[in-house]
Amino acid sequence: MTSGPSSPAEPEFPISTNSWVSTEVRVRYAETDQMGLVYYANYLVWFEVGRAEFCRQRGFAYRDFERDNDAYLAVAEAQCRYRTPARYDDLLLIRTRVEEFRKRTIRFVYEIVRKDPQTIVATGSTLHVVLNSQGRPKSFPAAYRGYFE
Amino acid sequence: MTSGPSSPAEPEFPISTNSWVSTEVRVRYAETDQMGLVYYANYLVWFEVGRAEFCRQRGFAYRDFERDNDAYLAVAEAQCRYRTPARYDDLLLIRTRVEEFRKRTIRFVYEIVRKDPQTIVATGSTLHVVLNSQGRPKSFPAAYRGYFE
Amino acid sequence: MTSGPSSPAEPEFPISTNSWVSTEVRVRYAETDQMGLVYYANYLVWFEVGRAEFCRQRGFAYRDFERDNDAYLAVAEAQCRYRTPARYDDLLLIRTRVEEFRKRTIRFVYEIVRKDPQTIVATGSTLHVVLNSQGRPKSFPAAYRGYFE
Amino acid sequence: MTSGPSSPAEPEFPISTNSWVSTEVRVRYAETDQMGLVYYANYLVWFEVGRAEFCRQRGFAYRDFERDNDAYLAVAEAQCRYRTPARYDDLLLIRTRVEEFRKRTIRFVYEIVRKDPQTIVATGSTLHVVLNSQGRPKSFPAAYRGYFE
Repeated sequence: MTSGPSSPAEPEFPISTNSWVSTEVRVRYAETDQMGLVYYANYLVWFEVGRAEFCRQRGFAYRDFERDNDAYLAVAEAQCRYRTPARYDDLLLIRTRVEEFRKRTIRFVYEIVRKDPQTIVATGSTLHVVLNSQGRPKSFPAAYRGYFE
Repeated sequence: MTSGPSSPAEPEFPISTNSWVSTEVRVRYAETDQMGLVYYANYLVWFEVGRAEFCRQRGFAYRDFERDNDAYLAVAEAQCRYRTPARYDDLLLIRTRVEEFRKRTIRFVYEIVRKDPQTIVATGSTLHVVLNSQGRPKSFPAAYRGYFE
Repeated sequence: MTSGPSSPAEPEFPISTNSWVSTEVRVRYAETDQMGLVYYANYLVWFEVGRAEFCRQRGFAYRDFERDNDAYLAVAEAQCRYRTPARYDDLLLIRTRVEEFRKRTIRFVYEIVRKDPQTIVATGSTLHVVLNSQGRPKSFPAAYRGYFE
Repeated sequence: MTSGPSSPAEPEFPISTNSWVSTEVRVRYAETDQMGLVYYANYLVWFEVGRAEFCRQRGFAYRDFERDNDAYLAVAEAQCRYRTPARYDDLLLIRTRVEEFRKRTIRFVYEIVRKDPQTIVATGSTLHVVLNSQGRPKSFPAAYRGYFE
C-alpha cells in the first residue's frame, strides 16, 4: 500500500502479482467538480467497480452471489486517502485485493493508479459484513469462501 | 428567460397557484462539474425530488405508495431544457405539476427557478408508467387517483 | 433509432456503420436504485461517455477540445426514452452519432443497447451550444469542424 | 461520538451544543441502490453538505471562501463508519464539527442521525488541506481563521 520509499528489489507498483486484481476506468465528466478534479465521493464508486471485477476475475459475478445466496456484502466502514488528484479523461487502474477474510466479514484494500505517468492517485479500504435481505448478519456462503481466500 | 411573453396581469412565475407544488434544493458541490456549473444529469435528480414533494404536499409519501400498492412509477421518458446555468450553492425552487393523468400513465412537468434573482434555470417533463415489482404494467391504484387529478 | 419494425434488408442494429461510434459500459451498483434497476438520470451520464468516445474515435480528445479552444459543448436540451430496464452488471453498448451539425450547435443521438440478448434499452438525444469559458456563445472552432461532419 | 454507553447526565445526542452545526437532508431515490438502502458513497456527499452548512452557520459561504481567497479545501482523507442503514425518504440530521484546525489543514467530523426514531446512521471524518487554484498548499486565509477555531 506503499506510499513510502521502496527498495530497488521491490518495485513500487507490482501490478501483476496474483493477489491484486486490476481493472480500468476512464474518468467521466460527471465525476469532476468545479475544482476541476474528481469529486471525492466518486473514489468509493471506483472501489465498488474494483470489487465487482475482483469477483469476476476470481470466477463469479457478484450479481450471482447476491441472487443465489440471499447474501449482501454491506459496507460497514470505508476510508480513502487522496494522494494526487485525478482529472477528467484520465485512464485509471483500480487494483483490488482482499486483506482480511473472516467468517462474517471481509476487508478489501484498493489502489487507484494513473497509468501515464504512473502515479498513485488514491488508496483505501472497505470493510463488509455479510447480511441477508432482511438485514441480518449471516456467515459467508461456504461455496464462495475459496474465491476470497 | 422567459419562455415567452407574459401579460402584465399574469405574473411570469405564479408560484403559489394550487396546481404547482414547490420545494427547494441548494446546489451541492457534488452536483457541479469542471465547467463550473451543475452537471446536466443532476436536473433529473431534482425532478425526482420535485415529484416526491408533490406527493407529500398532496397528502401521501411516495415511499408508502410503492410499499402499499406493489406499484412503481417507472420513467418511460424524460426531457429537460437547460435555460440558464445553475451554480454551486444556488438556492433553487423546484416546481412540479401533473400535466396528464391516465389510467396507467402520468406526466409531470417541472420548472427549476433560481430565487435571487428569479430566473428560470430549466424546464422539463417526465412520463411514467405504473408497473408492479415484476415489471408488469398495472392500473393506477384507485385510492391514489384523487391525489393526482 | 428504430424502435418500430425494420425491413429484412435493414438489420435492426447496424452496429458497424461508419456513422455510429460505439463504446461499452458495465452497469455499476452505484447506478441502480431501490427499484432494482438503473436510476434514470444515469443514462445521461452514459450519453456523455458516448460523446467522449465519439470524439476519441473521430480523432481527438474532448478534454483537449476544451483546453485548446476555450470552448465548451454546453447542453441546451436532453431527452431520453427508456425502453427496457438496464440492471446491475449488464454490459451495455452506447452508440453515438451526430444528427445535426451547425455553426454554433450540435445534436448527438444515442442508443443504449444490451448485448446479450441484444435489446434496445434506451434512445435519446442532446443538443449542445458552443460557449466560451465566460458562458458566451461562439462558433465551432474551425479546426474541429471536420471531425463532426 | 459515542456508540458506547452514555451517562444519564450526558444525553447521547447533545444536538444543540455550540460546537456542532446541524442541517437536514431527505434521502433521494437517486441515493438508494438495489439493496434497498442508501449507496455508501452518498454519505460523503452528505458530509459535504454538512461542511457547507457549517460554514454558513458560522458566518460565511464556502462559495465565497473559494472565490475571494483563491483557496480550496481539498480532501486528503475521508472515512465513514456505517452503523444503521438509511433508506429512501428518511429525514436525516447531518451534524458537523471541526475536530482539528491547523495552519494548513482542517479536520471535520460528522454524525448522520435519523430523526425518528433517533438513531446514529453513520459517523465519519474528512481531512482537508488548503490549496490554491494551481494545486499548491497555502496557509488558511487569516480572515477566516476565526470561523473555524
